[in-house]
Amino acid sequence: MELGPPGGAGPAEPGPRLRGLRGDDRAASAAWLSEASAGRRAPSVAAVLPAGGSGERMGVPTPKQFCPVLERPLISYTLQALERVCWIKDIVVAVTGENMEVMKGIVQRYQHKRISLVEAGVTRHRSIFNGLKALAEDQPNSKLCRPEVVIIHDAVRPFVEEDVLLKVAIAAKEHGAAGAIRPLVSTVISPSADGCLDHSLERTSHRASEMPQAFLFDVIYEAYQQCSDYDLEFGTECLQLALKYCHTKAKLVEGSPDLWKVTYKRDLYAAESIIKERISQQICILMDAKEDEEHVGRCLEEMLKKELNHVKVTSGALCHAGRDLQQIILEQCYNFVCVNVMTSDFEETRKLLNALEESNLSILYPVVVISVHFLDYKLVPFGQKMEHLMQIKEFAKEVKKRNILLCGLLIYYPQTKKKMRIGEA
Amino acid sequence: MELGPPGGAGPAEPGPRLRGLRGDDRAASAAWLSEASAGRRAPSVAAVLPAGGSGERMGVPTPKQFCPVLERPLISYTLQALERVCWIKDIVVAVTGENMEVMKGIVQRYQHKRISLVEAGVTRHRSIFNGLKALAEDQPNSKLCRPEVVIIHDAVRPFVEEDVLLKVAIAAKEHGAAGAIRPLVSTVISPSADGCLDHSLERTSHRASEMPQAFLFDVIYEAYQQCSDYDLEFGTECLQLALKYCHTKAKLVEGSPDLWKVTYKRDLYAAESIIKERISQQICILMDAKEDEEHVGRCLEEMLKKELNHVKVTSGALCHAGRDLQQIILEQCYNFVCVNVMTSDFEETRKLLNALEESNLSILYPVVVISVHFLDYKLVPFGQKMEHLMQIKEFAKEVKKRNILLCGLLIYYPQTKKKMRIGEA
Repeated sequence: MELGPPGGAGPAEPGPRLRGLRGDDRAASAAWLSEASAGRRAPSVAAVLPAGGSGERMGVPTPKQFCPVLERPLISYTLQALERVCWIKDIVVAVTGENMEVMKGIVQRYQHKRISLVEAGVTRHRSIFNGLKALAEDQPNSKLCRPEVVIIHDAVRPFVEEDVLLKVAIAAKEHGAAGAIRPLVSTVISPSADGCLDHSLERTSHRASEMPQAFLFDVIYEAYQQCSDYDLEFGTECLQLALKYCHTKAKLVEGSPDLWKVTYKRDLYAAESIIKERISQQICILMDAKEDEEHVGRCLEEMLKKELNHVKVTSGALCHAGRDLQQIILEQCYNFVCVNVMTSDFEETRKLLNALEESNLSILYPVVVISVHFLDYKLVPFGQKMEHLMQIKEFAKEVKKRNILLCGLLIYYPQTKKKMRIGEA
Repeated sequence: MELGPPGGAGPAEPGPRLRGLRGDDRAASAAWLSEASAGRRAPSVAAVLPAGGSGERMGVPTPKQFCPVLERPLISYTLQALERVCWIKDIVVAVTGENMEVMKGIVQRYQHKRISLVEAGVTRHRSIFNGLKALAEDQPNSKLCRPEVVIIHDAVRPFVEEDVLLKVAIAAKEHGAAGAIRPLVSTVISPSADGCLDHSLERTSHRASEMPQAFLFDVIYEAYQQCSDYDLEFGTECLQLALKYCHTKAKLVEGSPDLWKVTYKRDLYAAESIIKERISQQICILMDAKEDEEHVGRCLEEMLKKELNHVKVTSGALCHAGRDLQQIILEQCYNFVCVNVMTSDFEETRKLLNALEESNLSILYPVVVISVHFLDYKLVPFGQKMEHLMQIKEFAKEVKKRNILLCGLLIYYPQTKKKMRIGEA
């Protein structure tokens, strides 16, 4: 994942999540985002997340959105996926009365932002309707504003990426409604009353309707106000409501396999493995040197890039890269290599540790920080450098209390010999 | 999982996999199986497994059926699920020419039985047709016989249980065709030519068609012989072929969530977690005592039953429980507790170890065996017993080479005091 030039990536620019967009989409999103950043006619976007389900298909007593995945409730991952998208202004979550306190606890513990809670209805459609009402009211004391576009997503689809959110939001602005689709995995059939096959549907001419979906707020709110009790009780498809009551034909957007809905216990297993893999595969490399392509620090970076999905922050000093780093932390990178080329102390490492501590990233999983230092003992006597670096042990002890695992790596690299030896502090 | 009375469970009796059947089904299966065991009019059943897919949706170069799950190819689990069903006489697997050697290697390594390999076609339907042709030919040199009923399953649905196989086979015998179905997880929609929503289907009146399916051989073979090239190229549904070409309306059978198809990488993760859970949750308890309800060996058994899914083999001696044990090993139980109540040596443990070594169960994962012994030092001096039991260390060393982890557990249990102390050898 590339983050672009340091310091340059403002929150409204298309970030790394937009890689999937093709030419036209990219142009459209660029326009959308530049509007947003210029502050004129910026379309306001909110999200509604129905989370009132009972999860009966899971076969466990806990509703699936509250099931723990690596000890963290599933819905917290979904909220994180939404809140890291800066152009979604409000996220309205509909939860049942009995789970309201649980949900408040989750928002507090994982420090979710821009979240409003409303009471869920007895069906999914009623929960969404309640969420829309909260956005529509526009009362003086409410911090919620009626948005131009509203995204509807599921609490149990934690791996939604910014690009698909943007695609459906843009398509909704143009068409009034839009939704993500996926190819069917199984053939769909229609049974007869006696439990036999009546007919099977051609798989290629049908799609699975997934989430997220997006709507012009006025369209979907109107549809919900118009629709029958039968729709609210037994309907499953918001796009169908927009079609039926507002004659709005939704634009269909191809989604990625990541959009799947956690439905069965096996899906929880899959979610856990995906999160584990992401955590272990992602590494952030911080370099205090800028341009010296020859330096061994660069070689190390090149090597790491081949092995892992990396997030690079090259910067003269962390203070310039602060915003990038905040974003990386928000996106749950748990592995950091801090390459100290220019200085012989660990000022940069210390700054990183401070940023990590402030972020509370390590509440859940340990964060690993490797502080790399180079030694040319022609310039600095080995003993002196070692002694200096041994301070890192003290540091390590201290930050371990906050679930940050710090280790120092001293690389012997005489400028003349171009040879490396490695010693750990 | 209960295995019924020791020694009594012949291979043709409904075993533990039939728990899911309701009254009528149970009666039907009992009839089916008693016919089978009596040898008269026993309906012969074969299975065809198309395994020629490329697995493009998985996003990995290896076809998904050959992807390793805990280091074992996925298809091997599926074959095991089929071959442990004794009334399936032949299993025909269709693989592409380039994977033929890989497949032969898998059959050999995991000692799969009753497998015949045929060349896959370029589509799923063509592969199935090739499998059916192999069963139809009935040539003198072929070991395959034309079956009365043929089951079609997917190589990438490894968790199929005997009960659903039996249900579709019975329904196929009655109706000519039958297939497993599941409720839809997502709403299915029909897109218009311009990529917008045309209409959405009512979720409750449609089902996902899953596998296994079963057919009277003559019905499905006739259908494949009659069907067009277009069907063979683009069709996805065998039930539809039986309907279209033989006017046979398939009976639909509700399947369990386990029937899902490994399609994406996340499904491999899920499969791995399910297999791990199964292995860790299942324990086989062997007792050399029969009826003594008072004994501490029984208490231990009661305790283990509460904590784990257990498979009980109570028997005076292992020689009587041999067939049960073979079945348990075939069903991949990796944890054994051998409770030696009657004897002060470990003859029973030794027999178990022999059976395990012969089975090659430990090729893949370590098998854990705990040999439990009781000590009342009023009867046997502690030192003498300990010395005797220390021999288990020698045993343990020896079987460890074959990936069997043996440990001894000595329980101090004076008959008078009813107190327990535990020491490990």
